[in-house]
Amino acid sequence: MNVQQAGRIAIVGCGALGGQFGVRLAAAGFDVHFLLRSDYDSVKANGFELEFADAPTLRIERPNIYRTSHEMGPVDIVLIALKTTANEALPDLIRPLVHGQTILFTVQNGLGNVEFLQGHFPAHPVIAGLAQIGVNRVRPGVMRSFVPGGGFVLVGQPEGVSGDQGDRITQILDAANIKTQRAGSLGEALWRKLMWNVPYNGLTIAAGGISTAPVVENLHLRAYSKALMLELQRAANALGYPIEAEYADKLISFTRKLGEYLPSSLLDHREGRPLEVEAIFGEPLRQGEAAGVAMPHLQSLYWLLKGMDS
Amino acid sequence: MNVQQAGRIAIVGCGALGGQFGVRLAAAGFDVHFLLRSDYDSVKANGFELEFADAPTLRIERPNIYRTSHEMGPVDIVLIALKTTANEALPDLIRPLVHGQTILFTVQNGLGNVEFLQGHFPAHPVIAGLAQIGVNRVRPGVMRSFVPGGGFVLVGQPEGVSGDQGDRITQILDAANIKTQRAGSLGEALWRKLMWNVPYNGLTIAAGGISTAPVVENLHLRAYSKALMLELQRAANALGYPIEAEYADKLISFTRKLGEYLPSSLLDHREGRPLEVEAIFGEPLRQGEAAGVAMPHLQSLYWLLKGMDS
Repeated sequence: MNVQQAGRIAIVGCGALGGQFGVRLAAAGFDVHFLLRSDYDSVKANGFELEFADAPTLRIERPNIYRTSHEMGPVDIVLIALKTTANEALPDLIRPLVHGQTILFTVQNGLGNVEFLQGHFPAHPVIAGLAQIGVNRVRPGVMRSFVPGGGFVLVGQPEGVSGDQGDRITQILDAANIKTQRAGSLGEALWRKLMWNVPYNGLTIAAGGISTAPVVENLHLRAYSKALMLELQRAANALGYPIEAEYADKLISFTRKLGEYLPSSLLDHREGRPLEVEAIFGEPLRQGEAAGVAMPHLQSLYWLLKGMDS
Repeated sequence: MNVQQAGRIAIVGCGALGGQFGVRLAAAGFDVHFLLRSDYDSVKANGFELEFADAPTLRIERPNIYRTSHEMGPVDIVLIALKTTANEALPDLIRPLVHGQTILFTVQNGLGNVEFLQGHFPAHPVIAGLAQIGVNRVRPGVMRSFVPGGGFVLVGQPEGVSGDQGDRITQILDAANIKTQRAGSLGEALWRKLMWNVPYNGLTIAAGGISTAPVVENLHLRAYSKALMLELQRAANALGYPIEAEYADKLISFTRKLGEYLPSSLLDHREGRPLEVEAIFGEPLRQGEAAGVAMPHLQSLYWLLKGMDS
């Protein structure tokens, strides 16, 4: 995949996750366009910076930035990293960005986002990326990746989406040195991602606002994490996604390497922003229970986070 | 019961709960002796004060106070309200206070305290009081009761304790205008108390350090509370204690009346003191599971509190 073939790429939702995708793609020469709100002036003055655990910092001194989608105009790929709690704003943000062939690539957390985008943009292929990236926003325009190698992205193409758009996304990410894996199915990818998001986004908040390091190192919080992962793994199996129980241990090992990482939900909680409770916790709980799997540990965490979020 | 028949009464553990028992007994004319540590100088200067939700404040201007049990000497009843996390200090505190007939009356939280006292003082009758009192310490020597009528105490006499010591304790409390109920058995009383302590001591901490009011009013936290209560009720039934499921609703109604009450464990957590995790959460979990009752909601809360406490 050369950069001309990829065309114009829009980043919608330039928090830590969206921002780091944009910076890595732009640094690889892709034609990236960032939609910014509060960070616009700061990025205009200082550009973007992305620090890595084990690689030189990437800097984009003059990124293409916009305050509105109308200024940006149509693109070939829209990479969507907006919080799901802001989903109701998403159709209006995306509409000016699409032409007949535009691919929508969502890296949002949790369940329900693909269906939401398909509902609003039925003529466009929707591809999902499940990012195991581990990146925090340090200050406006400055991000830090906590994962050796910069993490990886599970790319999943929903059933019913024809063509090779998933391959195209994968090739673009590969060309930007972002490691990818193709998931057997989108559902499998989403549930594998939930097995990380549920315990680490949830317990870092519930245990009093701590990083992933004590959650993964403390005997009791690790036991709670693993119980949550195994409920999700059983739910995924009941829904037809062949995730192996050993994946829980792989995620625990992965998380050990993150060090004092602060998941996005914890940062939202600290800043008083709404939590993605339904996408990450509520929807998996309902889908798992509808498939006949008891999920009392997830139920407990859901009640607690809903209580804290309201 | 007249006050002469009751004899000397020691209060060991003069936090909010122990303090309010002492003040109410002393105000009724009983011969009460308080063992104090950090609050000694303040109480020496200003005495005790106990405010009620719906009754005049009680004041004890010159209480009998001591820095050590040796100064206090033997008494007829030792009322024990020390935190269970300090239980290892308890035998040495009590030993100078007992003569041949001394009754030990523990109002401590959770499971295991009666057995602990029986093990160290096998010659003495141990009576348990499960206090639904709702009292906070405002500052040294000053307490505030949140429950209309000043709450009540479930009095339970362990199996194997002969005689009428439970009646004697009940009569003393009644004479001090402290409402009592005799429990069918001590075990039943303990498990009824746990049905309050587990959700309200636990969730006020886990939901971010809040009072009982949002726990009882928020839809999700109330659902979590009730699920915990019903796990404990089923465990109690499996252990042979006939607690009815409707008791959960009674406790929720009772808690509504407390308003912005701060349970003792929440205050311990705020002050950085150890939590009574094993007595209130761990031991019921182990006993319930040993009796064949699944307690995943309690397990979740136990993992979380252990994680926060370590």
